[in-house]
Amino acid sequence: MSEIIASYQVFGRPGTLEKKAEGIALGLTIGSWTDLPLLDQEQLKKHKGRVVSVQEFYDDEHPNRYGEVKAEVKVAYPVVNFSADLPAILTTVFGKLSLDGEVKLQDLAFDEEYLRNFPGPRFGIKGIRSLIDVYNRPLTMSIFKGVIGRDIEFLKEQLKQQALGGVDLVKDDEILFDNPLTPFTERIIQGKKILQNVYEETGHRTLYAVNLTGRTSELRGKARLAKDLGADALLFNVHTYGLDALQELAEDNQVDLPLMAHPAFSGSFTSSHFYGLSAALALGKLVRIAGADFSLFPSPYGSVAMEKSHTLCIAKSLTEENVLQETFPVPSAGIHPGLVPQLLHDFGIDSVMNAGGGVHGHPDGAAGGGRAFRQAVSAAINGETLADAAENCPELGTAISLWGGK
Amino acid sequence: MSEIIASYQVFGRPGTLEKKAEGIALGLTIGSWTDLPLLDQEQLKKHKGRVVSVQEFYDDEHPNRYGEVKAEVKVAYPVVNFSADLPAILTTVFGKLSLDGEVKLQDLAFDEEYLRNFPGPRFGIKGIRSLIDVYNRPLTMSIFKGVIGRDIEFLKEQLKQQALGGVDLVKDDEILFDNPLTPFTERIIQGKKILQNVYEETGHRTLYAVNLTGRTSELRGKARLAKDLGADALLFNVHTYGLDALQELAEDNQVDLPLMAHPAFSGSFTSSHFYGLSAALALGKLVRIAGADFSLFPSPYGSVAMEKSHTLCIAKSLTEENVLQETFPVPSAGIHPGLVPQLLHDFGIDSVMNAGGGVHGHPDGAAGGGRAFRQAVSAAINGETLADAAENCPELGTAISLWGGK
Ligand SMILES: [Mg+2]
Ligand SMILES: [Mg+2]
Repeated sequence: MSEIIASYQVFGRPGTLEKKAEGIALGLTIGSWTDLPLLDQEQLKKHKGRVVSVQEFYDDEHPNRYGEVKAEVKVAYPVVNFSADLPAILTTVFGKLSLDGEVKLQDLAFDEEYLRNFPGPRFGIKGIRSLIDVYNRPLTMSIFKGVIGRDIEFLKEQLKQQALGGVDLVKDDEILFDNPLTPFTERIIQGKKILQNVYEETGHRTLYAVNLTGRTSELRGKARLAKDLGADALLFNVHTYGLDALQELAEDNQVDLPLMAHPAFSGSFTSSHFYGLSAALALGKLVRIAGADFSLFPSPYGSVAMEKSHTLCIAKSLTEENVLQETFPVPSAGIHPGLVPQLLHDFGIDSVMNAGGGVHGHPDGAAGGGRAFRQAVSAAINGETLADAAENCPELGTAISLWGGK
Repeated sequence: MSEIIASYQVFGRPGTLEKKAEGIALGLTIGSWTDLPLLDQEQLKKHKGRVVSVQEFYDDEHPNRYGEVKAEVKVAYPVVNFSADLPAILTTVFGKLSLDGEVKLQDLAFDEEYLRNFPGPRFGIKGIRSLIDVYNRPLTMSIFKGVIGRDIEFLKEQLKQQALGGVDLVKDDEILFDNPLTPFTERIIQGKKILQNVYEETGHRTLYAVNLTGRTSELRGKARLAKDLGADALLFNVHTYGLDALQELAEDNQVDLPLMAHPAFSGSFTSSHFYGLSAALALGKLVRIAGADFSLFPSPYGSVAMEKSHTLCIAKSLTEENVLQETFPVPSAGIHPGLVPQLLHDFGIDSVMNAGGGVHGHPDGAAGGGRAFRQAVSAAINGETLADAAENCPELGTAISLWGGK
């Protein structure tokens, strides 16, 4: 019998948590057990939630409530209880429970067979690499900046400069929606021309991820249109739509584009130590299952920083081996060329290094910033220090004088 | 120029929060200002976020960080910056910001004109009242219990008993999905027959809210099918799908059914004092805007309790006058007939009193529990004590001996 095993962080007095766990296992499945007639027990057995383990951490006291300790509770839910979609799964394992005091959903374990209900990334790390023909290094990405209220000429010039710098990917600002100055379709069509020109001029191909926005029922149609217009990839604010909307994009053979999951709004339910979902689950495992080829999350270095251990757990969830393709981890915010050796050390080759200000703020403009970024990646991959590499790479030299880096 | 004004709760050292507010107003709109050429300033002026107010509460110190106090920051976002849909609004006002430390989104203020972009409830409190022809009292609702793994005969009997008790509404368990034992369509068809029989027998009509579940793109089709099959209302786990999915159901003229928003999963982003959204915004204002005719939320009385002030703010958001119809507040969990006078005092006549165990756990069964519930409502409306009323209402007498109530 197939089950999903949910891991929760709870708090309570030592010795009381087994009972709490039993309450969850029954309350979120068949409701009651011991008072049921034997015949009913027979019928309901395969629907009954099951406490897998309760581990109390006696040294990890509740920060505010004397006498309570942290515990990890694992509960198995028979998959026969819900339809094989993420809204049903989340409602079962963390619907009512999310409202029931200090409980945090840390992880969901799916068996291989069950995982096949989900698409996972259509391209995955392997597919993206072969698409852009880059293998033995991390990818680089930069972000449009200050585009609200700007016209298409402004965006075109910014895209051109970024591409000239040699970044592999450029993504839209997540707060750029469909608008009269820079309509979705126009961004795709004009962006494509710009990037083709840069390719013809330099031999370097940059992919552009356009922000897919609008009403839920229009998303797939707009995504197919984007594909038809020759878009390279789609950025998607999945957490304001729900994971299932991402999954439907990933499953659609007529969309057939790399999908980049933006973490916008996710801090609402990942930031608290006591409530919500772990970042590894929300920005790692679940977006991978739903089909993101890239998952952005706050880097541990910038001003909008996430705890480093959390970012590493996200990256692990995105890339550990299972039946689904892998998702590129994209630690974002606060990134500049000087951080590249650190990024490589922390996130490895199979990651995307993504900079906004760290590309645009370069004294030689976004093109210079992109070059510095790529130079830093080459140096780090070759085991060279940035300072050494900077001797032959003027843009990198400028970057590390400005932002630091060794 | 139309704006949306977001209110945030932030923490910081007194005197530093004005700067933080400016950072939000610029960072979530045009990015920079003072370093822009005058010509650019002219072009971008109408897109620029604006700090409306910064109020520091010197007496409200951060519980853990010495020297920091709580503040309320209000920022106005020009609506020209985003498309008129909730994913775009949430991404703008709380996308990146949700990941930026201890910031909680407390409220969003829309002007009347802008609010007309949203459907609000199709029926509203007025429409629901005329639909079921009940005016001068709160409505009563009960919930299926322990239905996972049960067959349609079990559900039919439970529905019948609940309806015989005289409740106005019965809702599905939110963890009951489409399944072979009790398929969605079968629940509607069989439920309709049962309720028609009870109506013919007793003259009382109960409405049944069936749980609309499944993949996002199938929701509207299933909802239309439900309408065609004669369903009374739809229960919807909106927070696992996104608010826009609810809105699309509310806007669909072929769906045309009362919508009941369930709070499952919402605790993930409303429970923390420091992060996420206020309950009043998430379970009040936003579900009303998106079109819920009923909004369920944890009552302040039960074991899964929400702070009373929060529940009252939710109810106020759902019912205060604006251009949209009103949504029925449904404080849920821990409700029994003995709490009816308290519920009436706290939530008024325009609310739904919703009990699970407080109906099913009655010694005379769900029918007796429903009768006790209705008897308590009549007593409370007539200003009678429950104890007095119980003299002529045996089911109520039984209920208050079991659960208490005066
Ligand atoms: Mg951005
Ligand atoms: Mg329930």
